[in-house]
Amino acid sequence: MYELGVVYRNIQRTDRDTADKLAHLGSATVHEAMGRVGLMATSMRPIYAGAQVSGTAVTVLLHPGDNWMMHVVAEQIQPGDIVVAAITSPCTDGYFGDLLATSFKARGARALVIDAGVRDVKTLTEMQFPVWSKAVSSKGTIKATIGSVNIPVVCAGMIVNPGDVVVADDDGVVVVPRALAAKTLEAAAAREANEGEKRAKLASGVLGLDMYKMREPLAKAGLRYVD
Amino acid sequence: MYELGVVYRNIQRTDRDTADKLAHLGSATVHEAMGRVGLMATSMRPIYAGAQVSGTAVTVLLHPGDNWMMHVVAEQIQPGDIVVAAITSPCTDGYFGDLLATSFKARGARALVIDAGVRDVKTLTEMQFPVWSKAVSSKGTIKATIGSVNIPVVCAGMIVNPGDVVVADDDGVVVVPRALAAKTLEAAAAREANEGEKRAKLASGVLGLDMYKMREPLAKAGLRYVD
Amino acid sequence: MYELGVVYRNIQRTDRDTADKLAHLGSATVHEAMGRVGLMATSMRPIYAGAQVSGTAVTVLLHPGDNWMMHVVAEQIQPGDIVVAAITSPCTDGYFGDLLATSFKARGARALVIDAGVRDVKTLTEMQFPVWSKAVSSKGTIKATIGSVNIPVVCAGMIVNPGDVVVADDDGVVVVPRALAAKTLEAAAAREANEGEKRAKLASGVLGLDMYKMREPLAKAGLRYVD
Amino acid sequence: MYELGVVYRNIQRTDRDTADKLAHLGSATVHEAMGRVGLMATSMRPIYAGAQVSGTAVTVLLHPGDNWMMHVVAEQIQPGDIVVAAITSPCTDGYFGDLLATSFKARGARALVIDAGVRDVKTLTEMQFPVWSKAVSSKGTIKATIGSVNIPVVCAGMIVNPGDVVVADDDGVVVVPRALAAKTLEAAAAREANEGEKRAKLASGVLGLDMYKMREPLAKAGLRYVD
Amino acid sequence: MYELGVVYRNIQRTDRDTADKLAHLGSATVHEAMGRVGLMATSMRPIYAGAQVSGTAVTVLLHPGDNWMMHVVAEQIQPGDIVVAAITSPCTDGYFGDLLATSFKARGARALVIDAGVRDVKTLTEMQFPVWSKAVSSKGTIKATIGSVNIPVVCAGMIVNPGDVVVADDDGVVVVPRALAAKTLEAAAAREANEGEKRAKLASGVLGLDMYKMREPLAKAGLRYVD
Amino acid sequence: MYELGVVYRNIQRTDRDTADKLAHLGSATVHEAMGRVGLMATSMRPIYAGAQVSGTAVTVLLHPGDNWMMHVVAEQIQPGDIVVAAITSPCTDGYFGDLLATSFKARGARALVIDAGVRDVKTLTEMQFPVWSKAVSSKGTIKATIGSVNIPVVCAGMIVNPGDVVVADDDGVVVVPRALAAKTLEAAAAREANEGEKRAKLASGVLGLDMYKMREPLAKAGLRYVD
Repeated sequence: MYELGVVYRNIQRTDRDTADKLAHLGSATVHEAMGRVGLMATSMRPIYAGAQVSGTAVTVLLHPGDNWMMHVVAEQIQPGDIVVAAITSPCTDGYFGDLLATSFKARGARALVIDAGVRDVKTLTEMQFPVWSKAVSSKGTIKATIGSVNIPVVCAGMIVNPGDVVVADDDGVVVVPRALAAKTLEAAAAREANEGEKRAKLASGVLGLDMYKMREPLAKAGLRYVD
Repeated sequence: MYELGVVYRNIQRTDRDTADKLAHLGSATVHEAMGRVGLMATSMRPIYAGAQVSGTAVTVLLHPGDNWMMHVVAEQIQPGDIVVAAITSPCTDGYFGDLLATSFKARGARALVIDAGVRDVKTLTEMQFPVWSKAVSSKGTIKATIGSVNIPVVCAGMIVNPGDVVVADDDGVVVVPRALAAKTLEAAAAREANEGEKRAKLASGVLGLDMYKMREPLAKAGLRYVD
Repeated sequence: MYELGVVYRNIQRTDRDTADKLAHLGSATVHEAMGRVGLMATSMRPIYAGAQVSGTAVTVLLHPGDNWMMHVVAEQIQPGDIVVAAITSPCTDGYFGDLLATSFKARGARALVIDAGVRDVKTLTEMQFPVWSKAVSSKGTIKATIGSVNIPVVCAGMIVNPGDVVVADDDGVVVVPRALAAKTLEAAAAREANEGEKRAKLASGVLGLDMYKMREPLAKAGLRYVD
Repeated sequence: MYELGVVYRNIQRTDRDTADKLAHLGSATVHEAMGRVGLMATSMRPIYAGAQVSGTAVTVLLHPGDNWMMHVVAEQIQPGDIVVAAITSPCTDGYFGDLLATSFKARGARALVIDAGVRDVKTLTEMQFPVWSKAVSSKGTIKATIGSVNIPVVCAGMIVNPGDVVVADDDGVVVVPRALAAKTLEAAAAREANEGEKRAKLASGVLGLDMYKMREPLAKAGLRYVD
Repeated sequence: MYELGVVYRNIQRTDRDTADKLAHLGSATVHEAMGRVGLMATSMRPIYAGAQVSGTAVTVLLHPGDNWMMHVVAEQIQPGDIVVAAITSPCTDGYFGDLLATSFKARGARALVIDAGVRDVKTLTEMQFPVWSKAVSSKGTIKATIGSVNIPVVCAGMIVNPGDVVVADDDGVVVVPRALAAKTLEAAAAREANEGEKRAKLASGVLGLDMYKMREPLAKAGLRYVD
Repeated sequence: MYELGVVYRNIQRTDRDTADKLAHLGSATVHEAMGRVGLMATSMRPIYAGAQVSGTAVTVLLHPGDNWMMHVVAEQIQPGDIVVAAITSPCTDGYFGDLLATSFKARGARALVIDAGVRDVKTLTEMQFPVWSKAVSSKGTIKATIGSVNIPVVCAGMIVNPGDVVVADDDGVVVVPRALAAKTLEAAAAREANEGEKRAKLASGVLGLDMYKMREPLAKAGLRYVD
């Protein structure tokens, strides 16, 4: 977040298999498996419902109203990457549209996560190129000032290091640091394996109060029932 | 809103038939029939378009980042209820997901209205369990502090007493106090009966200016036309 | 924005053909063609996805919680118009619903753009009458105070003069002043003609860095690559 | 919140002595003594720093952009009251200025708490008539629609019944229901009596960790220290 | 708002005497005298309390994160002017600090009104150079892209034409179009002349209900009193 | 931001002399010297005007509505430190009041920077213990869940590592990474040395246009003057 004017070409990406497998677990399960950390701000919303992806982060830091570095980051994309874009101060301009999406897609990017605005959302939806952003805006940007590529950034309140895993779906965007990815995948998978049985019990009318044995701790905490 | 640590088991629900019939009238018509009061803040949005429900409120007061009481309120749900969840201070965390929805649904709940966040929205949409919330968030919550169930709460700016009717659709969430429900249903139905004829007139090109006889009062208010 | 209590009946509309042709170019391209000005605030969102329209503005200035002038503006609508509604102070109330939409549609209006709330969005979606607004709200309004019709207004941060062209789609709402409409149409069309070839190149893997010859200016600006 | 067009003349005010004594304890201590409930939204800010008051609530419900009922509520003020004003939908207009403040003051009001805007803040500061509001705005209001006086209202997210105690200072606005006022005063006073000793210990360098005996529960919760 | 890259050197300023006399009437009275129009958004706050100014507008349109045009507008300032700065999309950066304030002051400017951020507020307060802005921010800006000077702009939701009068104080910022300035001054002065007597009456305990003869219209509107 | 339940006791603080000297340069100059990076969100405001401090960061990560770790971080404070508090999801509760301030001050802390709420602001002002926060709130917090101390955190959008320098004043809060502190001090001091002369020139009426030789680049960028 502090170094301007530099592009790091060689980053250590999370192991591809691990990164890929986190997608179907979804952001909520992954977030729980992380110990309830790693979630970006809830202002980050998908431009269309239903997309669910994971990938390795390539990061880009841009200036307000200036998308020049979007073209620079495009060259650093490898298949399976997700571009994570942070801005040096709050901006809602449309940094990204169908032409850049065409380029990103051709390079193998799976999605864009940007703490700013996006445009051409109808075309992006037709292309099925998912974007999580805080705004949709027709407003174009200039190409005047350089930022950086593949430095650590803060995007929507969360630290993202290049090579980290990004998991994004309708519930939001979660970041899994590279060093924690394997452990998180394991924990998330275990968590999910567990859920089928729970769901069946709850569907049959068993209460969480009983399934999770909460009645005693609730009483100990002082909960009273009044008829 | 002031009593913590208590669960009221016996509440007086609005008459089922009245509560049920308000659904198809919709929140806008019901709101008008109430004299234009009872609407929650417009920050409350449905997680998917098209749901239109009414039901009797069971209320729950929770703490920021803590969904323990969600399991407590589940037990108090009766078929035809809508759970209304208020938080003691602003929070966007995901208090509710597919497991709780499974449990609520098994108990007969029709919807959740929560002045906080919700997650697993893709699954909730598939289940067709509607939620009105101010946020979508992967962030899970802890189970550490007790709140209350079936006390009067303020949810998204509106007082809700247990047993009141909640009417929710794409236009928002309206609360009808139990004592006013029958009268409101009557007024709303009368209002709606009226609308077909008006719509036909307007569709034929008749102006509201003429249909509502507004030209004279507008002139009296000083409106001038300039050619 | 400064004159209350007056309705201008005769306004100079942008040439119909020009106004109509701007629709399919879309708000982003038109906004670029304008030199990146004319966009309303990004808080203005369509009530349903996919609508893409252009038309000539008839303007209306209303007071908070009061939609009386909506009936007055209805009479001034001509086929191909888009109603642009501004409020004298921030308000999220539902100024417009299915009855007014029926009337506007009967008069030939193509859309409503309102810096406030709208209701009956399910019905409006079924009617395919598009609205761009900053809120959805069941809350009805009174009819007590007069505003104005066809005066210059500020809607969502942008000046709109009666007769200007409004272009609205999923990316937002752009205003094209009447005097600039022909020139803007030409520039936007030229811009779009250009895009097919660019898209094909980018899809083939050519980088924007090369296509736009950015490597040299980036280096001149000081961008460094680190391996 | 649900009854329009009525003024309740006779309300049961909290005992004067109790209401008065809560002022010097301050909103934070009173809020704690209530069990951490009763606080209005943090968007409610004083127009000048340093005011610290308590008093009995007289309530008023107004419409957006309309302050007619402010004159109605003035007549219901008794010495020691604080006026609590709620609006039927969000509005930032300036409902209250120096003339109304002069009138309120003459009637014995101690403050105004309003979930909207206020104006003439320089004069109000000179008069030392404190106001807690969510906005400051020059915008005046009309007098066209009736609301209610001394009905239960929701102001900035909190239920206020006429006769409840309002405690307001630089930290915010807390509501103490009449039935809980005596008990709350006692608890708040006890709490404060306690604080002098604690403050002295902390000032001498004793840690809260030791003073509150937190080390063991923290260790039990799993906290690890790394050198 | 639509023309980029141009500086209008000759603008028609409102008569100096009229512009100057509006200051002491204050934004609230002037706003009322205008018929309750002309107020900028309430997000515009003074950097220090107590300043009360009026002056003739010189306008500047800037881009997000770019304050180049601030130096261009400085040259167009004449004694008695107030600079009104609009940005082409929302930005909170600090466009203005003590160096520019020194320059503006040397040119005779009385204040800055900017729909963005400002910095060095401690020094500006010491200099007694008032600024109304929506943010305070240390973040500096670049000098890369040209905007315009003395074109019509929208600042914080209000149209400002060069030469209009700006009246700003603790209650907000009001714009008086040049053509309405003389009439507005007259109406505002009349309004104020009126207020002393009203204030005395209200201070003596006379109610607005009686002074404004509201009891009959309130009864006619249906207001009921309940004992 | 990713590790919960741990307290790092040994952190590498920026050299004391460097950290201390940054205070008087102020956040705006330091921010410029950093290359315009490092600023926290502008929602972070001081509880009273005029404080200007710098110090070494000790960091703490807390949960919504839970200030338990505030007592843990107190023990890690050394004279000259500034506590930087981040929350795992957005919260406005009052995590910090006069008792904790007494303890922090006794340990030698210079300030608190917290992306949440604070209370007892009147007393904190009297104590002259400055706090930068996004809210003021009477609402107290519980002590139920552990977070971490001296891990890297994101506070108000900016990465803070323990031992970094924090510079805070009326313009905002800037973070200077330890590795950049000496260089930043030098650059900031040089920048400031420069400003006196510039200020004198501007005060004498010289324009920035001439002092910074901007006329030629502006003309080259296409700026036109119209008489």
